[in-house]
Parts: sequence; C-alpha cells; structure tokens
Amino acid sequence: MRTQVAIVGAGPAGLLLSHLLSLHDIDSVVVENRSRAYVEARIRAGVLEQGTADLLTDAGLGDRLKTEGLRHDGIHLQWPGTRHRLDFRELTGRSVWVYGQTEVVKDLLAARHEHVHFEVSGTALHDLDTDRPSVSFTDSSGTPRRLTADVVVGADGFHGVSRETIPAALRTQWERHYPFGWLGILAEVPPSTDELIYAWHPDGFAMHSMRSPVLSRLYLQVDPAERIEDWSDERIWSALDTRLGLDGWALDRGPIVDKGITPMRSFVSTPMRYGRLFLVGDAAHIVPPTGAKGLNLAVADVAVLARALEAFFGSGRTDLLDGYEERALHRVWRCTHFSWWMTTMLHTTGDALDRELQLSQLRYVCSSTAAATGLAENYAGLPF
Amino acid sequence: MRTQVAIVGAGPAGLLLSHLLSLHDIDSVVVENRSRAYVEARIRAGVLEQGTADLLTDAGLGDRLKTEGLRHDGIHLQWPGTRHRLDFRELTGRSVWVYGQTEVVKDLLAARHEHVHFEVSGTALHDLDTDRPSVSFTDSSGTPRRLTADVVVGADGFHGVSRETIPAALRTQWERHYPFGWLGILAEVPPSTDELIYAWHPDGFAMHSMRSPVLSRLYLQVDPAERIEDWSDERIWSALDTRLGLDGWALDRGPIVDKGITPMRSFVSTPMRYGRLFLVGDAAHIVPPTGAKGLNLAVADVAVLARALEAFFGSGRTDLLDGYEERALHRVWRCTHFSWWMTTMLHTTGDALDRELQLSQLRYVCSSTAAATGLAENYAGLPF
Repeated sequence: MRTQVAIVGAGPAGLLLSHLLSLHDIDSVVVENRSRAYVEARIRAGVLEQGTADLLTDAGLGDRLKTEGLRHDGIHLQWPGTRHRLDFRELTGRSVWVYGQTEVVKDLLAARHEHVHFEVSGTALHDLDTDRPSVSFTDSSGTPRRLTADVVVGADGFHGVSRETIPAALRTQWERHYPFGWLGILAEVPPSTDELIYAWHPDGFAMHSMRSPVLSRLYLQVDPAERIEDWSDERIWSALDTRLGLDGWALDRGPIVDKGITPMRSFVSTPMRYGRLFLVGDAAHIVPPTGAKGLNLAVADVAVLARALEAFFGSGRTDLLDGYEERALHRVWRCTHFSWWMTTMLHTTGDALDRELQLSQLRYVCSSTAAATGLAENYAGLPF
Repeated sequence: MRTQVAIVGAGPAGLLLSHLLSLHDIDSVVVENRSRAYVEARIRAGVLEQGTADLLTDAGLGDRLKTEGLRHDGIHLQWPGTRHRLDFRELTGRSVWVYGQTEVVKDLLAARHEHVHFEVSGTALHDLDTDRPSVSFTDSSGTPRRLTADVVVGADGFHGVSRETIPAALRTQWERHYPFGWLGILAEVPPSTDELIYAWHPDGFAMHSMRSPVLSRLYLQVDPAERIEDWSDERIWSALDTRLGLDGWALDRGPIVDKGITPMRSFVSTPMRYGRLFLVGDAAHIVPPTGAKGLNLAVADVAVLARALEAFFGSGRTDLLDGYEERALHRVWRCTHFSWWMTTMLHTTGDALDRELQLSQLRYVCSSTAAATGLAENYAGLPF
C-alpha cells in the first residue's frame, strides 16, 4: 500500500489531520489498534477553545457542533462561601464550547472512516530517516500489511509506539506525577449550573462540568491510589454536595452511567520530529486535565503540521516542516505551564501554607482584572 | 513612665508608627535593644512602593526621598539571551522608588530619636489582656524601667519578644524555608543599569539592584549553607558576569563594602492582635526578598494600625482596632503569595520540568499584557 501520509492512531488528532489533508487533496491512511465502536465511545475531554471550534467549523465539521455544542462565555471559580464568575467574553472577546471529544470523533469518522484501518495489531514504524518511511501492521483479518508513505505521523497517544520508535538516546523527557487523581462521573441529569464550576475545598478540588443539556460530568480530587469500588454512588454525590455546596444552590442527582479514576501527570517528550516522523498530541505531551488543554493542544499541533504538510506536498517547501517542532513546543510549554498552574491553585495538598497561598491566589484572580484576564486568555485559548 | 502607645522596636515600622501618631498628638515611646548607630547602619530593603513613598511624603518625611531617591518606572526581566523591560507606569500608572531602608530609618530617627530608648535589655510585655498593659526593660544605664500604656505595639521583628508573648496555644504559624539563599553585596560603583534586573539563569538567580547613583547592590542565588568566606570578590563578580551577562552589555566592578548570605523564608503568624497588643511587620510575617515586599508590607500594617489608633484615641472608636487583623492579613497573604510566586519563578531548583515551567512563565509575563500587568500591580503595590 502507498499513501502520502501514514497516520498512526484514529483519535481526534489523527483523524483531524487526515481530514485537513484531504481538503488539500493530500492522501492519507490511518491505522488504529482499537475498534471503531471503542474509539467512538471513549469518554475524554469536553471543552473546545474558540480556536478549536473555529478550525473544526472552517473544515466543514461544524454542523453538529453548532446545533448541539454549548457556547460558554465564562466559568465559575469557587471556594467555601464564594462563587465568582469569570467572564471570558468580556475579558478577552473569546468563548469556549462544551462539545465532547466523543462527538468530535464521531464527526471526524463520518468524514474519514473509509480511510481508517481499525483493529490492527503489531504496528511498527520503519525507515523514518529515509524519504520512504513505512508502517507495518497486521490488519483486522489477520493479514500482514505494509503502508509506504512520504511522511509518518504519530498520533497514537501516550502509550503508542511512535514516540518509542525514536532512539532513546535522542529523546529528552520531562515528567511529573501529581499526588492526586480525578474521580470522574457521567450522570444522566441536567447540569445544575449554566457554566463550569471549578471549586477549591478543604476536602479537595471538585468540578461540575457537562456534556449536553441532559448529561452532567462531575469530578472529585482523590488519592490516585483510591479504588473506584470504594466509591459508591451515594458517597460520590455526598462528597460533591459538600465540595460544591453554596447557600441557595443545590446539586441535582441522576443515574451515574460512567465512573473512573484518572491519574494526573505533566509530560513532554522531544524531539517531536525524527526524520520523516512527526508526533502530535498525547504522543508527545500530556497535561493534567485542569484547564481543559489536552485536546485543544493536540488540535493546535495538527493545525500547525497540516499547514506544513500542505506546503510540502503543494510546493516542495520544507521550511514549515523544519519549523514544526519549535512552533508546536512554544504552545506546548505555555499549556503545560497553565495546566500546572490551574492544578496547583485548585488541588489541596495538606500543607497549611499551600492552602493560604491558593486562597490568596483565588481571591486575587477574582479581584484583579489583569489576573482574571491572564486566566481567561489561556483558558479560551491563545491564537493558533 | 506612662505613654499612650508603647512601641517595641525602632526599625522602620516602629519609628514610622511613632511618627504618624505624633501627627495626631498621640504620645508614644519606643524601646530598642540595639544602638542608634547600629539601627541606622544595617543594610536591608531598598525599594519603596508608590504607596509607601506617598505615605512618607504626606507625613512630612519626603524631603530627602524626593532629592536622593530614584524613581523607577519599571524593571528588567532577563533569561539567557533576552532582557525584557516591564513598564510599570504604562501598565499600572504607578512607579517604585529606590531609597534604602537605612535612609528611611535616618529620616525617621531625625524626627523621633528623642522618643526612643536605645540599648535596652530584658524587654518583657505585661497585662496585655487588660486596658493598662506595660513594657518592662532595663535601660542603657542599667536602670530597670516600666512603661505603662493604653496600647502596646510589637514592631520588634522576627526574633523579637512580642509575638512570643502571645500564648502559644492561641497562635497559628505558617512557615516555609526555601532551599536557597541570597548572597548580597554592596559595591561602590555606579549601577550598570538604569533599573533593576531580575535574571533567571541555569546557574541560579541573579539580581542587579542599587542604592544610589554611586552604590550598587547585587545578589546571587546560593545554597543557604554556603559560607561567605568561600566567596572571594573575584568569584562573586565572575558569577554575576555569567548570570547577568547579555551581548553588548557589561557589568562594572567596584570595591565591595558589604557582603553576606541571607536565608529565605515565608512566615506568617496569627493572631496579629492579642488584647491590647498589636503586631506589625516582621514580628508577624516574613517574605522572601524577591519582589521587595517586606518593608512595604510593614509600612502597610503601620498605615492601617495608625488610622485605627487615631480613631481609638480621638473618639474612643474600637471598631478599626477590632478590624486591624483582618484588614492587614488580606494584604499579608497577597504579598506572601506574590513573593512566593516571584521566588519560585526565578530561582533554579535543579528540576528539569521546573526549569521549563519557569521559562514558559517568563516568556508569558513578557508577552501578555495581562500577565505583565499582574506582576506590575503587585510590584508597584496595591493601594493601602
């Protein structure tokens, strides 16, 4: 098999790249370990930056986003006794969109599913330091295949093979594990809030997010070693009541249809380019979820790489491909810092001084226009 | 002896309070362990917020400040290859003043020295939970004395007796020791910069400050366990050259007339009021020096307390005295947070991820008007 761009991984990054390339008549093939049903069902991020929503719309993928997505012009920041709204639109002129990653993937698969090989195994990358790299794999019928390309893109996430194919001696990695995780639930109940609530509480951070007008997404800071079996629905709702509680406001409950505990880490790996291999999204970097940067950062990588590939295949220019890593990394470190900052401001550590620093920081963000604008411009997203 | 306000400690906080009270015909007496010569000579802070300069001027203490102080409208933030000016005046409409704490103390002593007992010993506080508290001490001639007052103010710094007089069971303390200290020098050489330079460098933080047009003050981040004897003048200048270095710029050297290593800590103790005792300045809180908040925070405490004492002695009102601690603590935590933030942004830790987070933060502060304004409004000082 021959294609121009071989893409490893059919998550939102890989599929979006394949779609953007197709708009410029660049041929691509995506290989994916999982089934289409699995890929479409997995619950992940749910907040799109203005720039992400604009890019999807410009690429002809905005129909459902426009009708089913929820435009949010701000968030609520909370600590005991106080719930303060930050108005992103007033502060920065930008908004965010609540639209689940699962929905983005469905929209992308509707456009690109014929170009994806699902349920492959044994994926391996070859000849990346030549101009004829390839990807070998066994397809879903058990047949060994080899996909030869001009460029290979690793969009296969943190656990994928692409990053690991780069010789270890060439790689630099930065990593931090946080001493807490997020217990997340998806509940069939209309959200009890118009916009997301980020709540600092002595018991730990809590967050009220949503996926649609009838589907709520809620999170609790827990020890990453906690077992989900120890958290009954009643215990979860009770903790949410306590941490999100505010006089005159009540949290509505409903059936919990998904629950799990996710560890939190910051991770960056360079290089993001090795010969004819380019990494995008989680394959190169992970941020903790506070601030909703992960998906948006993957989309930003893809936007930069798509333009570079268009220049490469359209006119043979290599300068944009050569500049991909530097351009992408600038945003990666900005978002890594912002996500770390949001995380350390909102998650309790048990240290008494940390607690007072966090509360002083929160009061400051909610009383200084400059500080509020700093949070808002990072959250709503810097221009691609 | 009888007075209205007995003040323990003749640093800038105690002397300024005594002076402000005198403007409202409130009688005060200050007791101080050290000699006048020692108090006037010790090298401490050197940057006054706009509000501090305004307060001193309004109190009739602005003559030398106006002629000898240097108005600075910004600072330089630096990392290897980049020196970026933050323009406080453009960002916030406010400036800072370079005018040494020693000069402030000289101005205050010129006005108040007759009301200070220097070189006292054995200072103790009594009957703080009555309306007739007192301070006992042995004066410089060896005579035991007792000073009875309506109110006692503890302005005797971190190592003073005032805070420790509050029963330990009633006190809450927050403290953090940083894993680095500042090696500071005073050098008889015109500053090589118009405004202060805060420099991040892989070898550690460095700073170029000044005391006057002919006196430079420079700092190096060092391990707090370093011995000053191991730092020859040549070694100090060489490290400053490296860390402050920038193409096309040179650091001028001159005779070093003072050098020492200071540990860095954050410390807050409550209550700041116990019966008729009120704590101001370092007696209640210490910030690391990055950001120059220590002296200014002490002045802010004094400004709030002076107004409360004027209301108390003028019309018998106790509500401002009752509100002193809450009002003061709000600013204490703001400055504690800002000083911690400046410190953690600029001092290397040896951790690779910290390094990239710091550089991303610095680039952001120097490219986002919102972030730059946040630094500037804290540095130039929030209103008293």
